[in-house]
Amino acid sequence: MATTTLKGQPFDRQAMDSMLRRRMFYTPSFEIYGGVAGLYDYGPPGCALLTNIMDIWRKHFVLEEDMLEVDCPALTPEVVLKTSGHVEKFADWMCKDPKNGDIIRADHFVEEILESRLKGDKEARGVKVVEKEDDPKKKKKKVKGAIEAVKLDDAVVQEYEEILAKIDNYDGEELGALIKKYEMKNPATGVEPLPPVAFNLMFQTAIGPSGNLQGYLRPETAQGQFLNFAKLLDFNQQQMPFASASVGKSYRNEISPRAGLLRVREFLMAEIEHYVDPDGGKKHARFDEVKDVELVLLNKETQLAGKTDVAKVAIGKAVADGTVDNETLGYFLARIHLFLEKLGVDQSKIRFRQHMANEMAHYAADCWDAELQTSYGWIECVGCADRSAYDLSVHAKKTGAPLMVRERLDVPVTIEEWQIDLDKKKFGPFFKKDGKTVEAAIEALPQDKREAFAQDLAADGKITIDVEGVGNGKVEVTKDLIVIERRTRTENTREFTPNVIEPSFGIGRILYSLIEHNYWTRGGSEGGDEARGVLSFPPPVAPTKVLLVPLSSHESFKPLLKYMSLKLRGLGISSRVDDSSASIGKRYSRNDELGTPLGITIDFQSVKDKTYTLRDRDSTKQVRADEETILKAIKALVEGEKKWADVEKELPAFEGQETESPVREEN
Amino acid sequence: MATTTLKGQPFDRQAMDSMLRRRMFYTPSFEIYGGVAGLYDYGPPGCALLTNIMDIWRKHFVLEEDMLEVDCPALTPEVVLKTSGHVEKFADWMCKDPKNGDIIRADHFVEEILESRLKGDKEARGVKVVEKEDDPKKKKKKVKGAIEAVKLDDAVVQEYEEILAKIDNYDGEELGALIKKYEMKNPATGVEPLPPVAFNLMFQTAIGPSGNLQGYLRPETAQGQFLNFAKLLDFNQQQMPFASASVGKSYRNEISPRAGLLRVREFLMAEIEHYVDPDGGKKHARFDEVKDVELVLLNKETQLAGKTDVAKVAIGKAVADGTVDNETLGYFLARIHLFLEKLGVDQSKIRFRQHMANEMAHYAADCWDAELQTSYGWIECVGCADRSAYDLSVHAKKTGAPLMVRERLDVPVTIEEWQIDLDKKKFGPFFKKDGKTVEAAIEALPQDKREAFAQDLAADGKITIDVEGVGNGKVEVTKDLIVIERRTRTENTREFTPNVIEPSFGIGRILYSLIEHNYWTRGGSEGGDEARGVLSFPPPVAPTKVLLVPLSSHESFKPLLKYMSLKLRGLGISSRVDDSSASIGKRYSRNDELGTPLGITIDFQSVKDKTYTLRDRDSTKQVRADEETILKAIKALVEGEKKWADVEKELPAFEGQETESPVREEN
Repeated sequence: MATTTLKGQPFDRQAMDSMLRRRMFYTPSFEIYGGVAGLYDYGPPGCALLTNIMDIWRKHFVLEEDMLEVDCPALTPEVVLKTSGHVEKFADWMCKDPKNGDIIRADHFVEEILESRLKGDKEARGVKVVEKEDDPKKKKKKVKGAIEAVKLDDAVVQEYEEILAKIDNYDGEELGALIKKYEMKNPATGVEPLPPVAFNLMFQTAIGPSGNLQGYLRPETAQGQFLNFAKLLDFNQQQMPFASASVGKSYRNEISPRAGLLRVREFLMAEIEHYVDPDGGKKHARFDEVKDVELVLLNKETQLAGKTDVAKVAIGKAVADGTVDNETLGYFLARIHLFLEKLGVDQSKIRFRQHMANEMAHYAADCWDAELQTSYGWIECVGCADRSAYDLSVHAKKTGAPLMVRERLDVPVTIEEWQIDLDKKKFGPFFKKDGKTVEAAIEALPQDKREAFAQDLAADGKITIDVEGVGNGKVEVTKDLIVIERRTRTENTREFTPNVIEPSFGIGRILYSLIEHNYWTRGGSEGGDEARGVLSFPPPVAPTKVLLVPLSSHESFKPLLKYMSLKLRGLGISSRVDDSSASIGKRYSRNDELGTPLGITIDFQSVKDKTYTLRDRDSTKQVRADEETILKAIKALVEGEKKWADVEKELPAFEGQETESPVREEN
Repeated sequence: MATTTLKGQPFDRQAMDSMLRRRMFYTPSFEIYGGVAGLYDYGPPGCALLTNIMDIWRKHFVLEEDMLEVDCPALTPEVVLKTSGHVEKFADWMCKDPKNGDIIRADHFVEEILESRLKGDKEARGVKVVEKEDDPKKKKKKVKGAIEAVKLDDAVVQEYEEILAKIDNYDGEELGALIKKYEMKNPATGVEPLPPVAFNLMFQTAIGPSGNLQGYLRPETAQGQFLNFAKLLDFNQQQMPFASASVGKSYRNEISPRAGLLRVREFLMAEIEHYVDPDGGKKHARFDEVKDVELVLLNKETQLAGKTDVAKVAIGKAVADGTVDNETLGYFLARIHLFLEKLGVDQSKIRFRQHMANEMAHYAADCWDAELQTSYGWIECVGCADRSAYDLSVHAKKTGAPLMVRERLDVPVTIEEWQIDLDKKKFGPFFKKDGKTVEAAIEALPQDKREAFAQDLAADGKITIDVEGVGNGKVEVTKDLIVIERRTRTENTREFTPNVIEPSFGIGRILYSLIEHNYWTRGGSEGGDEARGVLSFPPPVAPTKVLLVPLSSHESFKPLLKYMSLKLRGLGISSRVDDSSASIGKRYSRNDELGTPLGITIDFQSVKDKTYTLRDRDSTKQVRADEETILKAIKALVEGEKKWADVEKELPAFEGQETESPVREEN
């Protein structure tokens, strides 16, 4: 897909990747041992970028709303993930190639074979083939093999297109049937792969020495938060609503990871679980503060209509017209948008895409992904789901723990309802071993059916109810055992299971997208200089804030370098000294690649009068002033209070010294 | 073991534990599912404490010395950990009880049985038995069973004591022999456990869908740093010495973890690998800055003499007299000490203990543990080892990667040596398939033996060398194939594998010890009030810095609460509002338990003139001043620039309002 850089240049992924490697933003893990797919190490600038992103995240979300942070282990016993549904459902379908043993993701295989045939058909029909977006969510393992220009029947084309439109809906058996029906062969071997089998994406391990306690590495940080709900509510002095938050590594054993940092097996997640009373439309007390924030919302209907082109809309309007389900969900969509903006993602490359019915878990009320556009296509970087009461309910049911809120009612509520009394003394002996089962079935009778039973009881002296597993499934209960009456009851408290709104951040994906959005090149003429990469991170995000360069390796500069390093450290501003023998221009270039926004040059004039030049990475413009003024300007820039344009207006420009080309060194 | 609190009170671990649970510093993971031994969740104050400790750590180590931080995955392929030696050696010996299937750590079992018999002997002899330190490093699984007062032969007592002194030296077979010989039975079942088997402490998992790539969860973060050495050196523009650093979770599948946070299966580590030229005595350029730092050093000799009582000594002296092997190691011991001091550990409860020969890996040159004294005994919290060139060498050898430094020599070096030339044209055809093996054996001939071979060659016209696997192991090489001569060679570069000094921090252990060191109780009379816990963390470490309490829930306080929250947030100071209906005294008590050092009370006077009282957690003294003055004082306290005593001197005391007992509320 054709992307452009910040400055509108054609985006060259290979050039950027090579720069990121060279500058050690990240690098394949265990590379000297050949590496392992889907595992990456972050080097020093990558780590600093991660730290800064997380720092901004904590301030923007956790501190801003007094969220309760918890830190839970990745090691998780099986029972927890069985209850949450992950053991059963967190799987992809995979096929094995019987010839070479290759393992292929079944849905991707079907998709790619059919797309390749459709392309071949278009070629055969003489239609120009335009490369589709290279979307890593969809294409993990490219099926190798050249496209053959074979014309298909119109009916077949239509069948293929229908299958592709529904590709996310097929289970393993159906995928297997499609492979058989359309005789799909692995181009690498020429044979049909074996039928799909489910492959659970969780890493399995045994906890403890006996090997009996089966465990998994968590696939998300959410479950640890849910399990602590009762304690967190207590910590919050029983006040609702509130949110918990967690930052930590999660693990997914991807079948064949590709696309660099975008699909990895171990990744940093930051998740928020905001607990809200489901009654009253899930309002949010601070919604007003964000209601005018404008988002690009790609809703279900638009997607179904095959469109992707949508205008910005204020979140207040989107909630009001029902596009976004409720205020709390809307509040977080806006907050996510503001967070991404703060990080410096390209505003023209963010959209919020609503999940289609088939993408969403059955319990979810609504779900939107914040997607960032990159050279790999639109990438899901933040998910924001309304998980309803599902998680808290299933864990409460399984463990009996009170994962709910008990609220004192200001005004007691009087409830009129059909109540059932059983004569326990007679009931038990009468039904013997089935007593408990029958009792449970009676108590489960819904209010709207109880009136009819009361009438039956009055008329016939008995009722007949369905009780699975007892006799023939029909059980008669006579009026000496049961009373059904309409009565009133007063409630002073109300119990409810909160609903959960979950903004979930894939930090590695955000980091990668942020890099792409801030990358551009400078210089580079045809046949001339090589283009030099620049990463225009906003100063608060940049790995290192200030580069300190002495004009040369002259001894007189050393005390000043040390002095300025200390001064900056005292202000909490990270700096780096480059006193290598490379030219000043080269040293600045190197740090443009690292995204260092500011540079201080120490020259002979500095030694005399403690004035310094301050250089802006993006414009390469320089100003000159005394130490105090320069440090003040740096602080304001790094804390995001000022822009370079402000500083440039306030301080005298400096043009005496060329930083973009080699300078003769004095020694 | 009898410990005392910060204020000299007898330490009550149960009371403290219960407070920590109630305030959610940490809590057993998956507790609603019954929990998993050795796994803990950190709650909000625990997370904040962790974050603050790590923030101070990063500033103290990483930023201070421009260390290169890397972040590597916990998932590690087997080959890496085979090379490092972990697959073979990172194991404990365990026994299974044939009757109940219990799994017991063999060394602990032998130790506890013998100790229990020795105690029984003492009782039988009428000697008062004093409980030994409850050291979690040693006793993980208490062998249940009452001590029987049985007198032993004097010779047996001596045998037992000798075994106990050497308990860390036995391998599985020897431990099994001891169990047999002394008929040690599991008190829980009355039977002898099965022979010990090695149990590797790493969690195993398969990476990828095929199940063929065996992997482990890393037991330390060090290996990821070593594998990146060449890239890091490059990033550092080939300059030596330098350090890398890593912060992340590591995993050890402990056989039966006890002792709370002190022995867990998943834990946060922070590790530094400082790479130093082994030539020149491993000097450190900044050693002078720390040479006067005084440490309690418990060296090998003192331990062998059975003593533990040692005086403080300046690190400069300890390095000079050889107690500590070298300056770089000494530099880091001092820096670790300063770091622990900054965190607020009790200065009387730190010591540095040198590893005994049998504790240390064979390749280690020297190793010291920073131990902190707690109610569980002396706990290893930071290890500081000189790992020599071991790690870089083994990975380089296995992979062929150049994990070494190539240094340009200012003055070329002339080396006189015995050189061997082979007549390759004749040599190959002569030895045929054995050619390469024989050639390698010749090239491996050490310098000190070559002269003799040269003489043999001159005298006999041939030499006989040992070549394993060729013929009978003796190979004759005649003078037409070989020349051995003394020649001179000039070297312009020097290649060496750096040595590694590794300070390695167990963050959870530091956190727990820090809590114990800062815990004390206030009030509590016999039969009267309950004693209330206080955690006197230094302000920079405390989870929350400021508590904001309105005098009552009166509406007029709300805008001020919000205003002050915002003000503090703007200063980067974390605060928490407690506007619950509890008395002011109770609200302060609650926050003394959380270790919140400062409190601002908002009262009716505040509404009138924007003056506030500021309360000190430790003395419960209060001062009163206007907003600006109060905020300035808070900032100085939180950043560690001032102590409460300074503030108390500068600002007027406030005694008008009792905060330690309930206050009638106005509403």
